[in-house]
Amino acid sequence: MQRYFVPAEQFSEQQVIITGEDARHIIRVMRSQEGDEFIACDGKQLDVLAEIINMDEGIVTARIVERLEQLSEARVQVTIAQSLPKGDKMETVIQKCTELGAASFVPFLSKRTVVQYDARKEEKRLQRWSKIAKEAAEQSHRSRVPQIEHALTWKQLLASLEAYDLICFCYEKENGHQLRDVVQPFARELNERTAQEQSARVLIVVGPEGGFTEQEVEEAEGRGATSTGLGRRILRTETAAMTALACIMYETGEMGGM
Amino acid sequence: MQRYFVPAEQFSEQQVIITGEDARHIIRVMRSQEGDEFIACDGKQLDVLAEIINMDEGIVTARIVERLEQLSEARVQVTIAQSLPKGDKMETVIQKCTELGAASFVPFLSKRTVVQYDARKEEKRLQRWSKIAKEAAEQSHRSRVPQIEHALTWKQLLASLEAYDLICFCYEKENGHQLRDVVQPFARELNERTAQEQSARVLIVVGPEGGFTEQEVEEAEGRGATSTGLGRRILRTETAAMTALACIMYETGEMGGM
Repeated sequence: MQRYFVPAEQFSEQQVIITGEDARHIIRVMRSQEGDEFIACDGKQLDVLAEIINMDEGIVTARIVERLEQLSEARVQVTIAQSLPKGDKMETVIQKCTELGAASFVPFLSKRTVVQYDARKEEKRLQRWSKIAKEAAEQSHRSRVPQIEHALTWKQLLASLEAYDLICFCYEKENGHQLRDVVQPFARELNERTAQEQSARVLIVVGPEGGFTEQEVEEAEGRGATSTGLGRRILRTETAAMTALACIMYETGEMGGM
Repeated sequence: MQRYFVPAEQFSEQQVIITGEDARHIIRVMRSQEGDEFIACDGKQLDVLAEIINMDEGIVTARIVERLEQLSEARVQVTIAQSLPKGDKMETVIQKCTELGAASFVPFLSKRTVVQYDARKEEKRLQRWSKIAKEAAEQSHRSRVPQIEHALTWKQLLASLEAYDLICFCYEKENGHQLRDVVQPFARELNERTAQEQSARVLIVVGPEGGFTEQEVEEAEGRGATSTGLGRRILRTETAAMTALACIMYETGEMGGM
């Protein structure tokens, strides 16, 4: 069933109102009729089944039929920190990792970031990325839209690391840890906790096309990051995050086997 | 170090000759000098370190310095069977899954395939896909270029299933198997075999945008396929194969933890 993220203030006790692009989508693309149903989410704690009672001048009014259980959010909150890649690769990262269940995205700048960071364009780019995240979240039937942060400097990123329970710093070290060496013990420990304690925050850090410098690796490790290899094949920067994320979801029980 | 796939007939006992686009890449893009080194692979069993001894009229002649061990190929041979998706999504599937270590690709047609299959365009499309696979294999430092087969009909695909040791048929069934329920026991069994017996063939089957019909699911299961869910979030068709492949590589020891 079609799913729309709607600002919380458009929900009342018994109704939800859809405006703008989503209303146009319901009316023109879906060619909905009164009586048709869809799912509306406030992007946080509320998912409802809604039935259209009125469509007028680009505004859709729907009756809340029932509140739905939120089943599609991952137990582990994974944030993707991606050094700004070239072209439209950040869009690929955001779309694919949103489908795979990422909780939020932190673009950042590091020594070998090639992209020219332009603060004036920042707002427009953030809007575009947020739209991609919203659409991917709707399409993958999620209950939350991942948050996309403003781009951080390397120093700001380092300062933020202490908020995470596990930091997979994607970097191939000779004889270093591989992903499973890092994620498997973490998942085991997580499973031994009580249900209330099982929420955990994981950060995946991915470098730019040219990789991290040795100094950056040392600085990140000094703040609690674990250098983590992703196998013997060299992945492109935009492939690394989705690979690590898929495997972390797999290992923490999001794809069965528990 | 830069890596090029070169037809086997261009290798002699002591030299390798590079022509065409790769030669132009060495001369113009890399601006190589005599004495510079690169890696040449025949795409099958031979990887060599080569030193440029002559560059003339678009032909690069290099001396074979040493034969290299092939370390980047996966133990498990995974084939991706993808129902032809819209737009350039097949290119994304081929590029990303080549990086992740896929052995081959089988495009196919199923009931809900939207793309108009055009046999006249087939050859050109295959060439383009093969080029993407070759470039992704070079870039990810692989020793083999995945084979891309001609598109199969649904019946042909069904008939081919018996060649595989495990068939993950990506399909979300109510209370059905999830990926880890299927892959973990398979990987355990594989590890208990002797080293010589550890090669295995796995097939990941992914449907088109509209999914498989129930009849297709039944037919595939009748031929030994296992319906396999990829978690509670709905993945786009082009995200499914790379997700399943990443997790299979992870579970079979390609990212440590063994």
